[in-house]
Amino acid sequence: MSETNTMKNTDTFSPIRWDSDLDTLQLLDQTVLPKEEIWLDCHTVEDVAGAIKRLSVRGAPAIGVSAAYGLVVGITGAEASNLRSRFDEVSEILGKTRPTAVNLRWALELGRGIFDGLVEKHGEDPAAVRAGLLEWADKVHHEDIVTCQQIGDNGAVLFAKDDRVMTHCNAGALATGGYGTAVGVITSAFNAGKLGKVWVDETRPLLQGARLTSWELGRLGIPHDLVTDSSVGALMSRGLVDRVVVGADRIAANGDAANKIGTYTVAVLAARHNVPFYVAAPLSTIDQRVASGDEIPIEQREADEVTEVFGTRVAPEGTEVCNFAFDVTPNELIHAIITEMGVLKAPYTESIAKAFEEAGQAS
Amino acid sequence: MSETNTMKNTDTFSPIRWDSDLDTLQLLDQTVLPKEEIWLDCHTVEDVAGAIKRLSVRGAPAIGVSAAYGLVVGITGAEASNLRSRFDEVSEILGKTRPTAVNLRWALELGRGIFDGLVEKHGEDPAAVRAGLLEWADKVHHEDIVTCQQIGDNGAVLFAKDDRVMTHCNAGALATGGYGTAVGVITSAFNAGKLGKVWVDETRPLLQGARLTSWELGRLGIPHDLVTDSSVGALMSRGLVDRVVVGADRIAANGDAANKIGTYTVAVLAARHNVPFYVAAPLSTIDQRVASGDEIPIEQREADEVTEVFGTRVAPEGTEVCNFAFDVTPNELIHAIITEMGVLKAPYTESIAKAFEEAGQAS
Repeated sequence: MSETNTMKNTDTFSPIRWDSDLDTLQLLDQTVLPKEEIWLDCHTVEDVAGAIKRLSVRGAPAIGVSAAYGLVVGITGAEASNLRSRFDEVSEILGKTRPTAVNLRWALELGRGIFDGLVEKHGEDPAAVRAGLLEWADKVHHEDIVTCQQIGDNGAVLFAKDDRVMTHCNAGALATGGYGTAVGVITSAFNAGKLGKVWVDETRPLLQGARLTSWELGRLGIPHDLVTDSSVGALMSRGLVDRVVVGADRIAANGDAANKIGTYTVAVLAARHNVPFYVAAPLSTIDQRVASGDEIPIEQREADEVTEVFGTRVAPEGTEVCNFAFDVTPNELIHAIITEMGVLKAPYTESIAKAFEEAGQAS
Repeated sequence: MSETNTMKNTDTFSPIRWDSDLDTLQLLDQTVLPKEEIWLDCHTVEDVAGAIKRLSVRGAPAIGVSAAYGLVVGITGAEASNLRSRFDEVSEILGKTRPTAVNLRWALELGRGIFDGLVEKHGEDPAAVRAGLLEWADKVHHEDIVTCQQIGDNGAVLFAKDDRVMTHCNAGALATGGYGTAVGVITSAFNAGKLGKVWVDETRPLLQGARLTSWELGRLGIPHDLVTDSSVGALMSRGLVDRVVVGADRIAANGDAANKIGTYTVAVLAARHNVPFYVAAPLSTIDQRVASGDEIPIEQREADEVTEVFGTRVAPEGTEVCNFAFDVTPNELIHAIITEMGVLKAPYTESIAKAFEEAGQAS
């Protein structure tokens, strides 16, 4: 583990960085964590798109930030004559990587507006447009970190002393520009002296909880216990869980939240045991064009994510698999949606619209 | 895969066999399935106890049958002078292997009665007593298979055409003397032309669903899809599950059922989605000395079951783990307990007592 990667409580560790020497994007390869810390140099848009598809970078906000930088990577080397067509092509390639996380579309649409503005200002000057787009991508990255810190601080207010908090999957620094959403809330609660411990669901099939959340919490010095996904019910029935906080990949206008498969299960158990269940996410994860969770497209992934664990076959050859990557938690199971604009409560259609209005981002 | 292991629909494939040539017990090593089919020769009681502890043999009825044979293995080589003390010692060693499955105690207590009767009849003649005990163990084994077939047929009646059935962990032939409890019900429903498909939960941490249930169903030609444990909620919310049937490690007098960790979670989700949830188990799994699930001892197992998958580390070194092997499903979530004496319904204290009475086994 290289010295430069050491993360402290107050650091804004990020899985995404623009390397000025290489003049390109580097992504921390999350598929090999915690065993190895490898940074991937992304020299082409295909490198960025491949990293998103393979889940080398994952988590809705981190996908959004990576896509912003991906636009810059993609137009590198373009000439005046093909700058616009290249931008369109790059945007399309990035847009097709993953269907559920709405931050991807959010970043690409914002990026298009910026691109158009730059072309208007500089004409089709590739160097000037690329420099302007990079400045914007840096801003998206920086703002995501600030947003996460705000989400964390807003969420920490909800916690009581010594709370034992459960989280599912990884909604930490690794899933964002930095600091994290759900793990951001946990970090802020920890810094406020309120945290008892964290229950980390391992999160099959890709074990983001075991591999990534455990790794982050370990580095932050936050006490945590790893459990299988199927332990949630037993822990709650023993009264060992005070709160649940998770991230989201897309939230509908009515508050229904798509997140990593298994989130809905945790929410149903939390409801049965009267454990408050929170979703922590930036406004960029809320898709007001989608009225309810039924309309959120849910990605299905390959069978071998389930039948193989790190290359070891765990099911007989030829076993059929059903592998949804996400599920939808209906709004009635969500006690609060923690955003950078504050803690939103039901009825969500109203509170979400109001938050966008206040953020000056109402669509 | 050796020819002799081929299992057909009507076969009573068993993971337990007495090898007449070797004159000892052989157990199918379930820790290496489906990759390898290795039979373990058990020459000492420590071999049998070790196989039970390591989960080479697992599942409450299979543990009971193995313990019966384990008594025979354990007194092999005893002399008249130490026959009784050896029996006591062997019974104690076997009794300490695993705390939750009550069939273990059931078999050892039955075995003691048989042993006492044999000593009364033959005196302390090691050969005669061992022969009598082996005859009894064979009977326990045979009766377990017949019991499972009866459970299967009783349960199949509850099914409707094309039902999509979910099961958790492995309660198949591998978990019993043969045929299985939950998988026995599924097999009987399949043979009755009622089965649509089976949803197989992979069942972390030891993946008994992925490794064992998939393997059994594949050999039986029963259509099935493997899913992660955290997919259960998504499948139910999409209306893809018609029924759930699971086994049990111990059932209290009031119907509360201890079974593999994650069973309670499936039961809570089933209740939310109005999916009938059945427990299939022989009367030998019902412990009338235990009034409710609160009194059932729940085994906690080693951290490395969670932090390593087939020897590959999946969590950072030093990660703390909480690893309960079982959870308890309260009786109000159980639509029926399917036994060899028929389908028991709530109130279970009454229906269970009546079943024991009818079986002439009331304690």
